[in-house]
Amino acid sequence: MSTAGDERKETSGDSGIDRGRRLRCIVKLGGAAVTCKGEVEKINDEALREVSSHLREALMGYRSETEVLSMDWSRRSGAAEMDQIEEFDGYSIPNMENFIIVHGAGSFGHFQASKSGVHKGHLHLPIVKAGFVATRISVTSLCLAIVRALAREGMPAIGMPPFASGWETTDRNVASAHLLPITRALESGLIPVLHGDAVLDNIRGCTILSGDVIIRHLAENLMPDYVVFLTDVLGVYDRPPADPHAVLLREIEVGDDGRWHVLRPLDQGVEISVAAHDTTGGMETKISEAAAIARLGIPVFITKAGSPHALRALKGEPVDHLADDWLGTVIRPSSCG
Amino acid sequence: MSTAGDERKETSGDSGIDRGRRLRCIVKLGGAAVTCKGEVEKINDEALREVSSHLREALMGYRSETEVLSMDWSRRSGAAEMDQIEEFDGYSIPNMENFIIVHGAGSFGHFQASKSGVHKGHLHLPIVKAGFVATRISVTSLCLAIVRALAREGMPAIGMPPFASGWETTDRNVASAHLLPITRALESGLIPVLHGDAVLDNIRGCTILSGDVIIRHLAENLMPDYVVFLTDVLGVYDRPPADPHAVLLREIEVGDDGRWHVLRPLDQGVEISVAAHDTTGGMETKISEAAAIARLGIPVFITKAGSPHALRALKGEPVDHLADDWLGTVIRPSSCG
Repeated sequence: MSTAGDERKETSGDSGIDRGRRLRCIVKLGGAAVTCKGEVEKINDEALREVSSHLREALMGYRSETEVLSMDWSRRSGAAEMDQIEEFDGYSIPNMENFIIVHGAGSFGHFQASKSGVHKGHLHLPIVKAGFVATRISVTSLCLAIVRALAREGMPAIGMPPFASGWETTDRNVASAHLLPITRALESGLIPVLHGDAVLDNIRGCTILSGDVIIRHLAENLMPDYVVFLTDVLGVYDRPPADPHAVLLREIEVGDDGRWHVLRPLDQGVEISVAAHDTTGGMETKISEAAAIARLGIPVFITKAGSPHALRALKGEPVDHLADDWLGTVIRPSSCG
Repeated sequence: MSTAGDERKETSGDSGIDRGRRLRCIVKLGGAAVTCKGEVEKINDEALREVSSHLREALMGYRSETEVLSMDWSRRSGAAEMDQIEEFDGYSIPNMENFIIVHGAGSFGHFQASKSGVHKGHLHLPIVKAGFVATRISVTSLCLAIVRALAREGMPAIGMPPFASGWETTDRNVASAHLLPITRALESGLIPVLHGDAVLDNIRGCTILSGDVIIRHLAENLMPDYVVFLTDVLGVYDRPPADPHAVLLREIEVGDDGRWHVLRPLDQGVEISVAAHDTTGGMETKISEAAAIARLGIPVFITKAGSPHALRALKGEPVDHLADDWLGTVIRPSSCG
């Protein structure tokens, strides 16, 4: 794998726009990893700080001794950070990789969407229209909070809600997505932040577009070197992780036909176990989306947000070498590694 | 003027998407009208409630006795509103006109933008990049607050930040804007809410795109029946409104060549007086933008947010007849009225 090549840089003079650099990775911040379970609309600030610290080290070229200046200058951020503004004179932001963040909804949006049935469509019904508006308010609130948390940790994050960018579906499949604003933001050294959102659907009127589906579409079109899913558990297990007999699946291989099988550990009768535990469609959907990405030749790493394994995944370590002490799930194309 | 014709409706079955209805109006909520002067990042909640009430009556077909149900179901909105959700069953949203809201920044974004010089470009400089991120955080916070305020008053408002929708400039002039998400939102019976924003500029790297410039671009492309600017004063004066000798300009006519002159009151030596008071470029720019819209054949009304004159302007009354007791400024094409 190449290390996102600086030799391809073409900075167009004073505009600061840097065309032609490849996309290093797409990072999914799982809703469960950055919000508080069981509490409606509550951010997990500590987890977000950990994630920011890892992103900074892995993708922004910050060393531990580099001073971090906040890019959130809101009144509510407090006067101390306001004073830091002067310090930007003479400050330099390290050479960062191109990456995109997509976050889930966690305890935001879920209540509003399920209460009104936004995922089922029928936008002309008053309850659905109200739920559509309420869902978007909730998920864009979370997006703003995440952008602010990243900015406070020195990251030039920019919220790009899919609805506003013209993402639409046809019977729940992505029908159109205006990707130019995303690539332009990347070229300008910004970090696009997208999220699961309520969107218009050509057949149903409306639906919920999940973060996982967004990532697949971005991966297909922008071809990152790798994709990292940061969740609240270490990876994909053969049964619910709370089960004391649950086994972490370390390596899953995806063939050209999209079929996947577990490489490590070898003796797990996994396909059946996963299906059995997958009553909600959640894990099956996650593996399917990840497998669809791997099939494009892009390895996918699933691991626990804030853990040392997350830092190593964000650096792309498991692309070249899958160390025994790295805990997580790699979903890779059969032709890779 | 036609009253936004229901006869042109083509509802495409169950999707609730309503194609082919014309755009009734574009409403500018001036930053000064909806935020508190002199206080950084503070919303004027009372003003926003008044504006919502006027929009509802003028454009959403709500009569005063119609019950209003909140579409903001956030935790912070309180449990009382949560209980209202059940009431949406059997509720009907009156037949609304198509309209778009664009708001200014007021006490949001200004500090961040001016401190870093975002309007001057040079996005590659750390202070500008940080200011760009900080400005966007501030203006998107305001947008979210306005969308929530409108939703609480029963309006299906949807935030569509220009940066996320791909608005870009070339040397400060609008170079591209992805309008499809806006027209799709309108077709679905939603109210797009845009705002002045920090955007990428092909020459400078970045700049500030003002709400007034956004409105001109939308007007040129979507041809509303009329445009209403809601501000914190009654309209355009011949000198600063605080001056006891200031005279409200009631009617300004714009020729095909874009030149404008005051029709009422007749004896004002206005062009010179306006220029003299216009040291910041603010009022001159506002009249120029309004004149550019009027030149397209679209009348522009400037009046005070929350006043009875605002309600009449939102209803389009001054299009047909300019009553003596209506206080505000009409900027109209010479061929109209």
